[in-house]
Amino acid sequence: MSTLSPAVLQTLEGQAIELPSWAFGNSGTRFKVFTTPGTPRDPYEKIADAAEVNRATALAPSVALHIPWDKVDSYDDLRKHAEDLGVALGTINSNTFQDDDYKFGALTHEDAAIRRKAIDHHLDCIDIMDATGSRDLKIWLAEGSNYPGQADLRGRQDRLHESLSTIYARLTGEQRLVLEYKFFEPAFYHTDVPDWGTSYAQVAALGDRAMVCLDTGHHAPGTNIEFIVMQLLRLGKLGSFDFNSRFYADDDLIVGAADPFQLFRILFEVIRGGGLNNPDVAFMLDQCHNVEKKIPGQIRSVLNVQEMTARALIVDHDALRAAQVSGDVLAANAVLMDAFYTDIRPALAAWREDRGLPADPMAAYAASGYQEKIETDRVGGVQAGWGA
Amino acid sequence: MSTLSPAVLQTLEGQAIELPSWAFGNSGTRFKVFTTPGTPRDPYEKIADAAEVNRATALAPSVALHIPWDKVDSYDDLRKHAEDLGVALGTINSNTFQDDDYKFGALTHEDAAIRRKAIDHHLDCIDIMDATGSRDLKIWLAEGSNYPGQADLRGRQDRLHESLSTIYARLTGEQRLVLEYKFFEPAFYHTDVPDWGTSYAQVAALGDRAMVCLDTGHHAPGTNIEFIVMQLLRLGKLGSFDFNSRFYADDDLIVGAADPFQLFRILFEVIRGGGLNNPDVAFMLDQCHNVEKKIPGQIRSVLNVQEMTARALIVDHDALRAAQVSGDVLAANAVLMDAFYTDIRPALAAWREDRGLPADPMAAYAASGYQEKIETDRVGGVQAGWGA
Amino acid sequence: MSTLSPAVLQTLEGQAIELPSWAFGNSGTRFKVFTTPGTPRDPYEKIADAAEVNRATALAPSVALHIPWDKVDSYDDLRKHAEDLGVALGTINSNTFQDDDYKFGALTHEDAAIRRKAIDHHLDCIDIMDATGSRDLKIWLAEGSNYPGQADLRGRQDRLHESLSTIYARLTGEQRLVLEYKFFEPAFYHTDVPDWGTSYAQVAALGDRAMVCLDTGHHAPGTNIEFIVMQLLRLGKLGSFDFNSRFYADDDLIVGAADPFQLFRILFEVIRGGGLNNPDVAFMLDQCHNVEKKIPGQIRSVLNVQEMTARALIVDHDALRAAQVSGDVLAANAVLMDAFYTDIRPALAAWREDRGLPADPMAAYAASGYQEKIETDRVGGVQAGWGA
Amino acid sequence: MSTLSPAVLQTLEGQAIELPSWAFGNSGTRFKVFTTPGTPRDPYEKIADAAEVNRATALAPSVALHIPWDKVDSYDDLRKHAEDLGVALGTINSNTFQDDDYKFGALTHEDAAIRRKAIDHHLDCIDIMDATGSRDLKIWLAEGSNYPGQADLRGRQDRLHESLSTIYARLTGEQRLVLEYKFFEPAFYHTDVPDWGTSYAQVAALGDRAMVCLDTGHHAPGTNIEFIVMQLLRLGKLGSFDFNSRFYADDDLIVGAADPFQLFRILFEVIRGGGLNNPDVAFMLDQCHNVEKKIPGQIRSVLNVQEMTARALIVDHDALRAAQVSGDVLAANAVLMDAFYTDIRPALAAWREDRGLPADPMAAYAASGYQEKIETDRVGGVQAGWGA
Repeated sequence: MSTLSPAVLQTLEGQAIELPSWAFGNSGTRFKVFTTPGTPRDPYEKIADAAEVNRATALAPSVALHIPWDKVDSYDDLRKHAEDLGVALGTINSNTFQDDDYKFGALTHEDAAIRRKAIDHHLDCIDIMDATGSRDLKIWLAEGSNYPGQADLRGRQDRLHESLSTIYARLTGEQRLVLEYKFFEPAFYHTDVPDWGTSYAQVAALGDRAMVCLDTGHHAPGTNIEFIVMQLLRLGKLGSFDFNSRFYADDDLIVGAADPFQLFRILFEVIRGGGLNNPDVAFMLDQCHNVEKKIPGQIRSVLNVQEMTARALIVDHDALRAAQVSGDVLAANAVLMDAFYTDIRPALAAWREDRGLPADPMAAYAASGYQEKIETDRVGGVQAGWGA
Repeated sequence: MSTLSPAVLQTLEGQAIELPSWAFGNSGTRFKVFTTPGTPRDPYEKIADAAEVNRATALAPSVALHIPWDKVDSYDDLRKHAEDLGVALGTINSNTFQDDDYKFGALTHEDAAIRRKAIDHHLDCIDIMDATGSRDLKIWLAEGSNYPGQADLRGRQDRLHESLSTIYARLTGEQRLVLEYKFFEPAFYHTDVPDWGTSYAQVAALGDRAMVCLDTGHHAPGTNIEFIVMQLLRLGKLGSFDFNSRFYADDDLIVGAADPFQLFRILFEVIRGGGLNNPDVAFMLDQCHNVEKKIPGQIRSVLNVQEMTARALIVDHDALRAAQVSGDVLAANAVLMDAFYTDIRPALAAWREDRGLPADPMAAYAASGYQEKIETDRVGGVQAGWGA
Repeated sequence: MSTLSPAVLQTLEGQAIELPSWAFGNSGTRFKVFTTPGTPRDPYEKIADAAEVNRATALAPSVALHIPWDKVDSYDDLRKHAEDLGVALGTINSNTFQDDDYKFGALTHEDAAIRRKAIDHHLDCIDIMDATGSRDLKIWLAEGSNYPGQADLRGRQDRLHESLSTIYARLTGEQRLVLEYKFFEPAFYHTDVPDWGTSYAQVAALGDRAMVCLDTGHHAPGTNIEFIVMQLLRLGKLGSFDFNSRFYADDDLIVGAADPFQLFRILFEVIRGGGLNNPDVAFMLDQCHNVEKKIPGQIRSVLNVQEMTARALIVDHDALRAAQVSGDVLAANAVLMDAFYTDIRPALAAWREDRGLPADPMAAYAASGYQEKIETDRVGGVQAGWGA
Repeated sequence: MSTLSPAVLQTLEGQAIELPSWAFGNSGTRFKVFTTPGTPRDPYEKIADAAEVNRATALAPSVALHIPWDKVDSYDDLRKHAEDLGVALGTINSNTFQDDDYKFGALTHEDAAIRRKAIDHHLDCIDIMDATGSRDLKIWLAEGSNYPGQADLRGRQDRLHESLSTIYARLTGEQRLVLEYKFFEPAFYHTDVPDWGTSYAQVAALGDRAMVCLDTGHHAPGTNIEFIVMQLLRLGKLGSFDFNSRFYADDDLIVGAADPFQLFRILFEVIRGGGLNNPDVAFMLDQCHNVEKKIPGQIRSVLNVQEMTARALIVDHDALRAAQVSGDVLAANAVLMDAFYTDIRPALAAWREDRGLPADPMAAYAASGYQEKIETDRVGGVQAGWGA
């Protein structure tokens, strides 16, 4: 008998995890970015790689773009390219941290002209969304300061509100603005959106189509992330996840790699709060494959989310509630642990095969010859990276 | 020439810091509570000790009470006792963590009867506020869980809202509900109000007279606390401070002892945001004098706040703004550091003498004979403590 | 086919985890210690409870004592009591943190008379070891300071060496001194043995029979504990483990509860370094069951260690080495994760039954009637606790 | 009357702080490296800039080099260039983290050929030391792994010992090997020398001329760094400081900027342990001026060390000892705080002028025209940076 019921499998069939185009380019630390053979040279090749992840898993039907890294002449053409490969273009990510003008801020800058430039960049991103059919504009603000006194924290917060309001006003139809928060880095004293509370306060002041993005690596040590998941779902403001994992800071490791039990608890709260397969709550990856292979790294990542979702779905909620209500701490905990420790991988493998997918997507990709092909073909040109 | 202008001194004259009655009783860790000679045996003696702090400093005109630790037969009588000693009764602190019924929660408990009991305790506290003339009901929720699965995080949050609504509805006139948040302890997996965002979301749902209390020791490692001060002031929801300091967890050390520069930055943001000598923003201490003498510990604490406020008040705001606007990082930082490193202590000592206060309150207390007197007089009875 | 080979099962049969007598008494936080029905009133009852854990699991053949909490008139009698119940008396833990004399230190105190008193306490502990046949004297030093300047860090370190040398000189035969380190608490500025490096430097200066105790909850946030395990095994100085788990500080939760994957990695390094079933490396629990039942809490704990050891034992070391040598990051990580995600619980249950043990020790204990019996019988007297 | 006695001033006159050549080049985060006008294009220009710092302060008589960033055709010529500008060449820093071969390690690599390459690089560095007259070879190992299982922690530690032994054997005369430790980054799961204990164990196994380098930014959150300073001085193994400051991770901010009181406590322990103006304990900076001007950033940094040393030198040790011995916590802490809060800046300014130095080195540099000159002259070429 399978460890996964038909109902659970049906739920899993609806799961979709967006891939970040930049995960296929090179990334690294301030000390070194190692290059790798086969790395894409342009957005078209990134999308081709993302499509391989989807081919192996049927879990990754869309790709997030980062502007300007993924700027192309025709987004219509890029969209068709993606559709031909079976994937869609997803969230548009803005970038206001790599222009020299933004050294001291962008949407929060003291200088109105620089703020205007940063706002205009976001309006351009919305133009791209119109062309790609993307729903979400995701804003990660790398803004902040390195030394006490360097910046007027309050003035920046007020200017941030003004800038976001202008951007928000440009959205149409189903389009949304999703505001990411991050504890620190690249700024080392203050960050303008450092925590969920600030992101929540800012998006609540904008309107219903402004939401919070929770990146699982962007919290202080020890933070109970699943509590924040619960709270944002409760407040109706959890717009999306950036999944990854960490031991120390924003390590951007493969989701589930550092603390699998934490990922389980997060997904348990997602389910508890109605966030699974809920279009309001986008699942995305945001990771750096600094030392491991990138396409297999992304396959491993979406599988980790799928497998952990399966474990979270088999929690016996009746037994859990009974134990919670009766104050039986050990029994309640045991219900969770029993689901976590159940090996759902064989059932998932069998189910994949039933659906015409490879039982072992990692092995299938390795056997596909795709990696060898791109390593051979992608010679010359400039490998994609963060442009840092 | 004094380092402190008449305007600064006038501002400092308006400063008031509320003392916690429990700081005069014994406190410690789970491993040991050391007793000390002269420790008060009842609320009357605690208030007498608090009055000594005010006598030496003119900085501490009120005393916060903790119920039931400070229960007395007649609050009218207690208030007169305080007034006779030159101080007022201040914030009323509730306690829903020491009754056996609250093992698994109080305002959030699964059992409606236990929630009702906890709500009723708060209504009793408001009755006491009516008698003492206190404005603020401060709620620190020690509630949470130790193991994943033990509690339904979401259900508890909803029940918390219900319970707080009932309590809030009982407030009259100028009375306020102030909700404290704390990162962890005594619960070790989840805490029901772990961060400012949760406290803010809960009090915002109650109304204008519900505010957030910021305890400086209740954050994750590395948290930029002054940013939260700025944000809560901006949102109009900073109701009060619980001042103390920490190196690790909620160490409850003397305010300013662990990281004086952090205290400076906090007070700088208080001033920047209009929170100084603003009746909406109560200054309080919440500390444990586990190994040091208690009355001198409190004198040292209010002096630390006063001295650091003085440093924060002499920041050259024009120079700071000029440096910020021009992007001169080092100059902006230097403006702050110049104020921080200025030795305002001689000017404060002279000013105290001008006002008929001791130039050196610590020495004055030591010379007063009060300590010897209480060590001699307070023999027998049960020393006040936390009742843990 | 079982997931566990005969060789793995044979290894597991050799596993022994010492229980702390104090886990059966009441514990809590500085805010509240909740009492529980059936709590032991004396060392005899604690040992009886510990024996139940061993009866259900065959994993816990010895009990650590804490002096003075477990002082009895005749240790010979206590030992026979234990032996009658099928368990042995194990490590002797000293206590130099609950006497008023130790407010400012014990083995490090400025006052030679107080140091002598603390040393004598340890010599008394060794006398007890002679009587109980215990091998290890475990020293956890709660010493430190709360404020910069309060203590002379260097002088204390030198005095610590002197005191430990005197104690070490008293050991005979196979007896060992095991020095525990702890990041912080109960001291909040400095702790005299805060990290493995300090413990290592101190015990290395004593001799071969002085070792380090690694408590899994006593590290700074983010510390890679398995690295320390590896290093201490490499240096030949890992004397024992105090197992527990934590989300924040020294939470003393059930081992494996907070981060099961961390426990897996620790046990993997134990095996890698030859520390499993190695008499030089004692496995012990050191936990607080503040809100959960105590005996089942201990059963759950030893099972967690056993189950995670089983997972760590099935790592495919050949595949791991091949992947490591070839620089295949994802393959190497997958070998570890495959072992971690394998559900070894059914195989363990079957194996337990083969050995005449209950397949489900938690259920067996619940069905045994023991809990009801002690709740009925243990009325009156003073429940054991930490004496804080 | 000056706040600084002649004896204190004489001690300060002996203070020397080595500057890192790379602080004058561009640095940044993985997200962006901002360039700045006037940035040096080669080691000669870096040394010229460093000499300006020394000209303004008389505090920075030597410059550390980083190989290969500072490779030149003739180190003899470079040394003469430095001497002409009044400074010496100091510590040689190796780099084994930017060659593609080192993706999975250098001195610890599985492949003996790569280890040999990394060893040879260090031997080359020692050749350079012979030419420059440098005493110290400083080794920061960026080695580690990102995922559990990726690396064999124990094997790497053993290989590290072998590699270091080979390098150590090549040292002659007064030359030393100084091994830096770092908590994390660029590796995100394990780092081969993550803490002082590991560095200590490794250098102790080498010999007397192997020492530990303490970088103030390389610790876990909450670590009591001055305790480690005390311990390493006590063990005779503190070889050098890399000074900087941090709020979060390895932020590499200006020393003293984030937590001035921590710097005070560190310098207090340096003095307590005999490490001030002790040739065995080198003072160096290791910072990144990502957003602030670099030469003034370095001037500010050495002044911060000087000023804080002055504050630490005026601690009243007799009063401190008396308070410590008597257990007067508040008095002992007050002695430290009194020194910390004393404004020694006017006395230092007067003393500088007495010595023919600018009273305000920051202002003197700004007025010197040097910055304008290099911004005008240094056009074209490639600005120096980390080469990441």
